[in-house]
Amino acid sequence: MRPIKETIPISEALRLVDEASRPIDRTSKIPLEEANGRTLATDIVANRDVPPFNRAAMDGYAVVAETTADASRYKPTRLQCIESVHTGRLPTLRISPGECTEIATGAPIPDGANAVVMVEQTNRQGLEVEIFSAVTPWQHVGQQGGDIVTDQTVLRTGELLTPSRVGSIAALGMAEVDVYDQPRVAVLCTGDEIVSPGQPLEPGQIYDINRFTLSAVIAEHGGVALTFPIAGDSLEALSIAVDHVIANRTDLLVFSGGSSVGERDLTLDVLRLKGTVDFHGISVKPGKPTAFGHIGTIPVLGMPGYPTSCLSNAYLLLVPLLRRMAHLPTYRPQTISVPAAHRFTSTNKRHQLYSVRVVSGAAVGAFTSSGHITSMSKADGYIEIPEGQDIVEQGENVDVTLF
Amino acid sequence: MRPIKETIPISEALRLVDEASRPIDRTSKIPLEEANGRTLATDIVANRDVPPFNRAAMDGYAVVAETTADASRYKPTRLQCIESVHTGRLPTLRISPGECTEIATGAPIPDGANAVVMVEQTNRQGLEVEIFSAVTPWQHVGQQGGDIVTDQTVLRTGELLTPSRVGSIAALGMAEVDVYDQPRVAVLCTGDEIVSPGQPLEPGQIYDINRFTLSAVIAEHGGVALTFPIAGDSLEALSIAVDHVIANRTDLLVFSGGSSVGERDLTLDVLRLKGTVDFHGISVKPGKPTAFGHIGTIPVLGMPGYPTSCLSNAYLLLVPLLRRMAHLPTYRPQTISVPAAHRFTSTNKRHQLYSVRVVSGAAVGAFTSSGHITSMSKADGYIEIPEGQDIVEQGENVDVTLF
Repeated sequence: MRPIKETIPISEALRLVDEASRPIDRTSKIPLEEANGRTLATDIVANRDVPPFNRAAMDGYAVVAETTADASRYKPTRLQCIESVHTGRLPTLRISPGECTEIATGAPIPDGANAVVMVEQTNRQGLEVEIFSAVTPWQHVGQQGGDIVTDQTVLRTGELLTPSRVGSIAALGMAEVDVYDQPRVAVLCTGDEIVSPGQPLEPGQIYDINRFTLSAVIAEHGGVALTFPIAGDSLEALSIAVDHVIANRTDLLVFSGGSSVGERDLTLDVLRLKGTVDFHGISVKPGKPTAFGHIGTIPVLGMPGYPTSCLSNAYLLLVPLLRRMAHLPTYRPQTISVPAAHRFTSTNKRHQLYSVRVVSGAAVGAFTSSGHITSMSKADGYIEIPEGQDIVEQGENVDVTLF
Repeated sequence: MRPIKETIPISEALRLVDEASRPIDRTSKIPLEEANGRTLATDIVANRDVPPFNRAAMDGYAVVAETTADASRYKPTRLQCIESVHTGRLPTLRISPGECTEIATGAPIPDGANAVVMVEQTNRQGLEVEIFSAVTPWQHVGQQGGDIVTDQTVLRTGELLTPSRVGSIAALGMAEVDVYDQPRVAVLCTGDEIVSPGQPLEPGQIYDINRFTLSAVIAEHGGVALTFPIAGDSLEALSIAVDHVIANRTDLLVFSGGSSVGERDLTLDVLRLKGTVDFHGISVKPGKPTAFGHIGTIPVLGMPGYPTSCLSNAYLLLVPLLRRMAHLPTYRPQTISVPAAHRFTSTNKRHQLYSVRVVSGAAVGAFTSSGHITSMSKADGYIEIPEGQDIVEQGENVDVTLF
C-alpha cells in the first residue's frame, strides 16, 4: 500500500494530457446521411456551380430587363409569351426584346432573358402579357454560381460538420464524405468485487457503474467506447486484459477500479510494467487518485474507482483528451451564474468540484460522498472552488456548469 | 398561384405547434449501454441498498470504534488481528473489542466492527496491530444504503438520462431500462427538379439539400429521420407519397420543396385533401412560406424549399415540436453577446433571423440569400431582429445563437 506522495495541480495535469494527445489520422469515407457531427478529413472543393444555372427566384415571366424600363400599371409594357417552363424542365426558345417566357420558381431562365417579373406584377390575355413594373437586370433571378462557384473551397479539412455544412456538401451532389475516424476507447474496469448489471450479485460484490458512466461520456464526445470483461485484482489478470485491449486497435485506454483501485497500485504497476507513468495524483477533489501514462503510443488514463470521482475526472480530463483525439473543438458546457444558497467550504489545497442542485434560483450542495453516484445523478451541475480558496459565502455568485 | 394572404407572428405559430404536439407514448426496453440521452418511461425504484453492505472506505483495519477512544501515537491501542479481508471476499469472523480485521477498500466490514482505521495510522507486528488515532463510529465506512435505500425512487418517469443517471441505474444492477420511443419523422422532399446527391444532374435539375439538413437536425434533437423518395410536382404524386409515409408508422411529417414549392400550393393542397391546415405563412424572414396542419393525428410541417429558409425554420419550429414529442427538455442553444460589426437592417413587419460570422469579437452579416446554403454553412450562428425593430446599429450588442 503506497500512498500518493505528491499531487500536481489540475492545470499541470491538463497540460500533460494535452501534450500527449494526438489527433487520430485514420479517415473513412462515410455516407453523407451519417456525417453530421463528424470532422472533415478533406477540403470540399466545388465540382460545379450552385445553382448550376440561372433560375427563376419567383413565379412569373422571364424577360429582357431593359424592355421593362418604362412599365407601370397605367402604361404596361406588352410582351408576347413564347413558352411556359415548369420547374425541372428546360426552356427551348431564346427570347428577344418584346418577348417573355412564363416561368416557375426554380426553373432555368431562357437564353436572352436576364430578369423575372413576378406574376403579381402582370396580367395575361392569351399570349399577350402586360408588365406593370420595371425590373432591373438579374432581379428575381438566382444566378448560376451565386451560392458556390466551381473550384471554390467550400469547407476545409478539420471543420466540424453541422446541418448546414452537410447541406452545402449535398448541394454539390456528393453522397459520401471523408471524415476522421472516431477514437476507439477501451474501458477496462477492474476489481474482484465488480459485477456487470444483469448478473446476480453475491455478498461482498457491487455492480459496475463506471463502465456505464464512462461509455456515455465517451460517446457524447466523439469516441467509440469498447467494452472488455471486468479484470480481476491481480497484476497478472490486469496484464492479460491490457494485452487483449491493445490487440483490439485501441486509441486510448481508460482504467477504472470498482471501488477505489486507483488508490492502490495495480493500474500503476501495469503501467510501469508495460509503459510509462506521466503523473499519479492530482490536487483535485474528488478525483485525487488519478494516473496518466502511456503504453507504446496509447495514452492511458487511470481513473479513481469511486463513481463520482471517476465521472468528475472524466469531465475534467477525459473529455478534453478525447475531443482533441477526435478533432472536435474544445467543449464549452453550458453554465449559469446563481447565488450560493449556503456557505460552501473547501480544502484550499485542492481544486474542488462540488455538485449542486439549482433550487429556487440558488445553488444547493448535492455532494454526499465520492462513493455515491447519487451525488451526481441528483445534481444539476457542479461548481468549482479553485485551489487556494477555502470558502464560498452564502449569496456569493457561483458559476454552475450544467450536466 | 395563390399568394399568402395573411401571416401569423412567430409566437402564435409556436403556440399552435406546441398545442398540437403530443409526446410519444410508445416505450421500449433498451440495453443500459444505449440509454444515455433518452427519456425514462418508468420510475426507477431501488430494488436493493447501494452500497449493498457496510464496506471499508479506506485500506486499514476494521475495529470497534469505541475501543480506539484513547489511542494516540504515544500510547497506541493494541488490537489482535483475527483475519484479512480482500475486496470481493467476505469476512468469516465476528470481531469483539480488543480485536480487528485487516481490510481492503471496498470489502465488507466484519460483524461487530463499526469503523475503519486507515493503514497510515497503524503499525503491525505479527498479529498485533498498534492503532495511533481514535476513530468515531462509522468513520471510513461506506454504510449500507448510504447512496440509495431499497424502495427509494431514484429517478422518475420523464427524466432525461445523463451519464450519472445511467450510472445510478447500473448501481442497481439493471441492465435494461424502459424509455420513450423516439419520434419517427418522415422527410418528404418534393420537386420535379430535385435529384439525390450521388445521382447525375441533368440540365435544369439541382441536388436535394433539405433532406440532409432536416435529417441532421432531426437526429440531433431526438428523432429518427425516415427517408422517402423525392416526390414529383403533382398533387397525385404527392398524394401517393403521403399515403406511403402514413403507412410507415410516421409520428411527424415534414415536407420540403426543392426550390420553393412552399410558395406554391401543393403541400397545402395535399394537406387540405387529406387533413387540415392550421396555419400558412409566418411573419418571419427567411421562412415566411411555412405551413402547419394535420393528417389524422400526424402533425405536418410544410417547410419552405429554399435551403436557408428551410433550415432556419427547422431551428425555430421543428426543434421545439420534435423535442416535445421526444420528451426532451426545451433546447437551450448557446449564445454569445457581441457588438454588431456594422448596421443590420430588417423589415420591421417580420421577425428576422440574420446569419452572422463572429470576426474579431463582432457579428458580421453572413446572409446572402435564402436560396444560398452558404448563408448558413459559412456562418457561426444567427441574430434575431424582432418584429417592430428595423435597425441594429453598429456597435450595439447582439445575442448570437451559435450553430
